[in-house]
Amino acid sequence: MRFFSDNTGTASPEILTAIQEANHGLVTAYGNDPWTKRLDECFSTYFGTEVRAFAVATGTAANSLSLATISPSYGLIFADVEAHIANDECGAPGFFSGGAQLTLLPSEHGKVTHGALSAALEAHPVTVHTLQPKALALSQATELGTVYRPEELSALCKLAHDHDLKVQMDGARFANAVTFLGCHPGDVTWRAGVDVLSFGATKNGALAAEAVVFFDHALVRDFELRRKQSGHLLSKSRYVAAQLLAYVESNLWRRNAERSNSFAQKIAHAAGPFLMHPVEANELFLGLGTARKQRLRQAGFEFYDWGADSTGETRFVVSWDQREEDVVALCAALGDLQR
Amino acid sequence: MRFFSDNTGTASPEILTAIQEANHGLVTAYGNDPWTKRLDECFSTYFGTEVRAFAVATGTAANSLSLATISPSYGLIFADVEAHIANDECGAPGFFSGGAQLTLLPSEHGKVTHGALSAALEAHPVTVHTLQPKALALSQATELGTVYRPEELSALCKLAHDHDLKVQMDGARFANAVTFLGCHPGDVTWRAGVDVLSFGATKNGALAAEAVVFFDHALVRDFELRRKQSGHLLSKSRYVAAQLLAYVESNLWRRNAERSNSFAQKIAHAAGPFLMHPVEANELFLGLGTARKQRLRQAGFEFYDWGADSTGETRFVVSWDQREEDVVALCAALGDLQR
Amino acid sequence: MRFFSDNTGTASPEILTAIQEANHGLVTAYGNDPWTKRLDECFSTYFGTEVRAFAVATGTAANSLSLATISPSYGLIFADVEAHIANDECGAPGFFSGGAQLTLLPSEHGKVTHGALSAALEAHPVTVHTLQPKALALSQATELGTVYRPEELSALCKLAHDHDLKVQMDGARFANAVTFLGCHPGDVTWRAGVDVLSFGATKNGALAAEAVVFFDHALVRDFELRRKQSGHLLSKSRYVAAQLLAYVESNLWRRNAERSNSFAQKIAHAAGPFLMHPVEANELFLGLGTARKQRLRQAGFEFYDWGADSTGETRFVVSWDQREEDVVALCAALGDLQR
Amino acid sequence: MRFFSDNTGTASPEILTAIQEANHGLVTAYGNDPWTKRLDECFSTYFGTEVRAFAVATGTAANSLSLATISPSYGLIFADVEAHIANDECGAPGFFSGGAQLTLLPSEHGKVTHGALSAALEAHPVTVHTLQPKALALSQATELGTVYRPEELSALCKLAHDHDLKVQMDGARFANAVTFLGCHPGDVTWRAGVDVLSFGATKNGALAAEAVVFFDHALVRDFELRRKQSGHLLSKSRYVAAQLLAYVESNLWRRNAERSNSFAQKIAHAAGPFLMHPVEANELFLGLGTARKQRLRQAGFEFYDWGADSTGETRFVVSWDQREEDVVALCAALGDLQR
Repeated sequence: MRFFSDNTGTASPEILTAIQEANHGLVTAYGNDPWTKRLDECFSTYFGTEVRAFAVATGTAANSLSLATISPSYGLIFADVEAHIANDECGAPGFFSGGAQLTLLPSEHGKVTHGALSAALEAHPVTVHTLQPKALALSQATELGTVYRPEELSALCKLAHDHDLKVQMDGARFANAVTFLGCHPGDVTWRAGVDVLSFGATKNGALAAEAVVFFDHALVRDFELRRKQSGHLLSKSRYVAAQLLAYVESNLWRRNAERSNSFAQKIAHAAGPFLMHPVEANELFLGLGTARKQRLRQAGFEFYDWGADSTGETRFVVSWDQREEDVVALCAALGDLQR
Repeated sequence: MRFFSDNTGTASPEILTAIQEANHGLVTAYGNDPWTKRLDECFSTYFGTEVRAFAVATGTAANSLSLATISPSYGLIFADVEAHIANDECGAPGFFSGGAQLTLLPSEHGKVTHGALSAALEAHPVTVHTLQPKALALSQATELGTVYRPEELSALCKLAHDHDLKVQMDGARFANAVTFLGCHPGDVTWRAGVDVLSFGATKNGALAAEAVVFFDHALVRDFELRRKQSGHLLSKSRYVAAQLLAYVESNLWRRNAERSNSFAQKIAHAAGPFLMHPVEANELFLGLGTARKQRLRQAGFEFYDWGADSTGETRFVVSWDQREEDVVALCAALGDLQR
Repeated sequence: MRFFSDNTGTASPEILTAIQEANHGLVTAYGNDPWTKRLDECFSTYFGTEVRAFAVATGTAANSLSLATISPSYGLIFADVEAHIANDECGAPGFFSGGAQLTLLPSEHGKVTHGALSAALEAHPVTVHTLQPKALALSQATELGTVYRPEELSALCKLAHDHDLKVQMDGARFANAVTFLGCHPGDVTWRAGVDVLSFGATKNGALAAEAVVFFDHALVRDFELRRKQSGHLLSKSRYVAAQLLAYVESNLWRRNAERSNSFAQKIAHAAGPFLMHPVEANELFLGLGTARKQRLRQAGFEFYDWGADSTGETRFVVSWDQREEDVVALCAALGDLQR
Repeated sequence: MRFFSDNTGTASPEILTAIQEANHGLVTAYGNDPWTKRLDECFSTYFGTEVRAFAVATGTAANSLSLATISPSYGLIFADVEAHIANDECGAPGFFSGGAQLTLLPSEHGKVTHGALSAALEAHPVTVHTLQPKALALSQATELGTVYRPEELSALCKLAHDHDLKVQMDGARFANAVTFLGCHPGDVTWRAGVDVLSFGATKNGALAAEAVVFFDHALVRDFELRRKQSGHLLSKSRYVAAQLLAYVESNLWRRNAERSNSFAQKIAHAAGPFLMHPVEANELFLGLGTARKQRLRQAGFEFYDWGADSTGETRFVVSWDQREEDVVALCAALGDLQR
C-alpha cells in the first residue's frame, strides 16, 4: 500500500487513449503539428485570457526554463524554504540561468507570507555588488499540501511587482489546488498577478506532460530558444500535446484531483491529532513518532520519512489512482494508532 | 506524401503496447522501477559488454548531456560540418558545458576523415590560451545518410584517444546504420573505441525515447547529476524505459530500420543521377535543380530543401512507417524526371 | 576621517617601488616572466610547504575561481551567513561554477561553528535530486572582524573532509588574522586542512594583487584554464607578481597588518560597551544607536551603517594607512559618547 | 632583441607617474572615486559623442564582457578566423555568455569582408533550432596588422545592423589603427556603427588598463553587473582609471603608437619580399622560410612562429618601448637575408 508520491501513479486511460488517437499519419515535427498548435487556444480557454502555452516533459524543465526567462545569471529568486526548486531539482534554476541564486524564505505551512517576503526584500540591498532580485517563485499547491487563497496570491504578487520581480508559479499540483478552492483557474494565476506558470499534469494522471503557460507574452521568444537549447523541445511533439489537450479539455484534471483530494480528506479525518499541516490538496504530513511510524510500516504501508528518521515526521501522498481499499485501510490503521 | 523527416512518423504499435503494459500499479518514481532498472542489463546484452544505460526523452538531451560529461567549459569538440549538434540543436553543447566550442571539420559525404581530424588537431595549439581539445563527436548514420565502417571508426577513435579526446557518437539513426552494415552493434561502438553513445529510438518508431549508453563507466556519476539538473530525469521513468526495452528486446529496432532502409534503396535506385551521396541509411540527398524540385512538389511530394532554394538540392527522409505506395509513387516520379 | 573600508586605502610605497623596479626590459607575457615564475617559491617559503601560487587582480576572482575548481554546477557550497561570497560578489560563485548554490550557515561572531556545519550536513540529503555538498568556504579574518583559531579550523576542515568537501579560505584579510594570532601562516591553512586559499594583499597595501594558493595541487590545471577563460590572466603579469613578492618577502604584510590591527585595538578599547563582536583584526562593529551615530558623523567621521539605518549598528574599518590622528580623534569621540 | 609581442613591453613613465599621483588619501572604493568618475567625460571628449566608459584590467575581460551583453547563451557571434576571441582567449566568449558560439569567417589580410559576412548570414537559417545571430566582432587593428578603413567599417556595420546584429570591436591595438589612419577616433567607431568597443591601453604602454566603451548606452546596466559578477570590478579602481586618463588625455596613446608604427614601417621597408600582409600597425608577418628564420634567431632575434614551424611563417611585433637599435639591427638583418 504505497503512499510515496503521486509520481508513482500510472497514466489515466484517457491519456493513453489520446496518445493512441494521435498515432496516425506523418505530421511535421517539433511542434508544427495540429495537436501542439492547439495548445494556445486550449489553455487560453481554460484560463479565460489569452496565453501562450508550451509543452515539456518534466516539471523541473518547466520550472527552470520559466525561471531562466525572468532571471539572469546575477538574479536572485525568492522561494519558500520547502520549495521543490530548492530541494529536489539538483540546482536546476542555477544551471539554467547560468548562476542565479535562491533566497529561501521561512514559510507558514509551506506558504510564503507577505511579511517574510517583505522583510527579505528590505534586508537585501540592491547595489552592483549584490544579486539582483528578479523573481518570486511560489508553489500552488505548496510542498506541504496547503493552498494559497487568491487574495494571498494577489498580495504577494503585488509586493513582488512593486519591487520589479516577476512571479513564477510551480503548479505541479495545480489541479489539486484549484479543485480544493473551487475557483476559476484564472483566479489563482493571472488575475492574482502570476506571470508564468508551470502547469503540471504528470503527477495527476498524465504520462509525461507539463505546460509552461505565459501570461506575460514578452517572455515567450526567449523561452522557445532556451527550451530548444536545453533539449526540451520534443520532436514528436504531438504526443505530449495530445496528453495536455485531453487532460484539460476532458476535465480529467478535475476528476483526478477530486479523487485524490477527497481521499486525502478522509485520511486527514482519521489522522486527527497527527496532522502537522492543514490538508488542502493530496498530501498529508503526519507527526507519528518513531514507534507508530514503525507499526504502520509493519502493517504494510509505504511512505516517506519527512526529515530525519528520528523526528518521527512522515509524508503521505495520495495518487489519482490510489486504490480505495488502501485508503480505507490507512484510515483504520491511523484510528488504531490513537487508541 | 511526406518525406520531411523520420520525426514526422508515428510510434510503432509495439511501443504503445509496451507503454500500456507498464501502466499498472504504483512504482517508485525517478527510475527506481522494474523497467528502468533493467536498462543496464538490456543494453549490456545488446552491445555484448557491460554498459550503463540511461533514458532521456530527446536526442538533443542525449547528445548534450553526454558531451558535457567529457568537455568542460573550456573544451573543444571536433565534429563534422554537417553535425546535428552544430546545426540543429540551438547551441545545446555550449549551453550544457557552460561554454564549450565546436570546431567543424570538412566531411566527405558527411563523414569526418582521418586526414581532416589529424590536420585539425595539428593546427590547434594546446596552451593555456586556447580551448582544450576534449571530444570527437561522430554521427552514425551521418547527417548525409552515409555510414561509417567499423575500421573507419577504429582509426578515428584511435587518433582521438591518442590526443586524449573522448569519443561521443550521435546515434539518432544508429539502428539504420547497424542494419545497413549487418554488423554487431558492438562493432561500431565500444570495439571501435566509442566512449559514449546517444542511442536513438524516437526517429525509428519510439514515441519519445533515447538512451545514453556509457562504455566508459567513469562518466556515469557526473551524467546522472547533470541529467537531473537539466530536467531530463523523468518522474514516471517506467514509460520511457518500457519503450527502450521493447525497442531493443523485440528487435523492433531492426525491423523498422530494415523497412526504411530498403525503401530508401528503392528510391536511390530510381533517383540515379540525382544522388549527391551514397544512400546507406534512410536519407537521400538529391540534386534535382529548381525546376524538377517544383515539379515533384506540384505532384504532391513534400520534402525539405537542403541549403538555399536556389541550389536545387533536396533531402528526402524515409520514415519507418512510410506508406509503400508513397515510395512507389516517388520512384515513379523520379523516373519521370529523367525522361 | 574615513573608516569606510580598507579598500579606500592607498598602495604602500614599497609596492610602487616594486612596480617601478619591474618596469624595465621586454619580458615574456602572461606569466612567463622572472617575477611570476618566482611566486611558487615565494609562497612555498612563506607557508612552509610546497604550494602553487597564482596572481589575480581581485578578491572576487580569487574566491570564485578557486571555488569553481572544487564545485561543479550541481555543487553546494557551505559558507557563513556573513560571507563576502554570499553578499558582496554579485553571485560570482554561481556564475563561475555554472550554477552552484550557497547554503548559508548561522555564525557566531562571523565564524562558522562545528555544530552549525554538522547540522547542515546532516539536514542535507545527498541524492540525485539534491545539490551535492562540495565545498566549505571560510573567511579568515571573518567578515565580522574575528579570527578562527588553528584548532577551530582543524575541526571544521576535518568535518568537511569527512564529508568529501574541499575547504576554500577567503583570506582577504589573511595578514590581519595571522598577525593577530601570532602564528605561522601554515597553522591556519594547510596544517589545519585548507585546500585552497585566496591570499589577499590589496586591502592591506597592494595596488591590485591577490594570490590563489593551492595546497591541493590536483586543482591547479583546471584553475589555470578557468583563470585564462575568465579574463584573469594578466598579460603584463610581472606587475602583479612584483607586488606579491614585495608584499610577502619584505614583511610588508605584517608591518601593515600590525599597524591597522593595533589601531583597531585602540579604538576597541575606547568603544567599550558599544562593541558587538570581539575585535581581532582591523574591523570594528559598534552598536551606537541612531543618535550617537549621527553625532559621530557630524563630528566628521565617515563609516558605513551595518544593516538597516534604524538598527544603529555601524562598521568601522581601519586601513593600513589610516592617519594616527584620525584614530586618536575617533577614540576621543567614542569616549565622549559614553559620558 | 625581442619582437614577441607588445605585451612584453613595460609601462610608460607617464603611466607610473599617474599611478603615483593617485596614491594619496582614502577614497571610496569600487569606482566611486574622482578618477573613475571622470572616465565617461574623458572618453566622451575623446570620441566626440556621449559614451559610457568602464575600466577593466584585461583585454579578454573587455571583449568577453561586452560580447556577453549582446549575445545570450544561444547567440551566434561572427568573427574573422584570425580573431583573438577565437584563438587566444580559451573560449572566454562562450563562458561569459553561457554557451554562445563563434562562426569564423575567412578574412582578407585579417579583415572580415562584406562578402564573407553576407554569405555567412545567408547560409545560416534562423529558426528555433539554430543559434541566433547576435553579434559581429571586429578587430581594429586586425590580428594580421592591417586596419579597416572607415568606409569598410560602415558597410560591415550596416550589414550587421540590417540583420539585427550588434557590433563589438576589439581595439587591443586601437591606438595603432587610429594613428595609422590619421582619422578621428569616432570615424572608426560610432560614426561607422560600432556599438561597443574594447579600448586597449595595456599593449601600448599602460600597466594593466582597458576600457569598455559603450556607444549603445542600453547595454550598460547589464554590463556593470556582469563585470562585478565576473570579478572585474577593481576595488582600488582609481589606479586603473588613472592609467586610462593619463593615456588618453596626455596623448600618450598617440605618441606610443606613432613610435611603434613608424618602427614597423621601417622594418616593413627592409622586409620587402617577405611581407605576407600590408603593414598598417605595429605587427609584421614575414614568410621567411625555415632556413632564414633560423639565421635570424641565431643572430639573436626573438619572435614567434606563425602557425606550424614548417611553414616558415613568422610574426614580429614592435612594442612601444622597442629599442631603436634593435629595429635598426633587424632591418639590417632582413636586408642581409635578401642578398
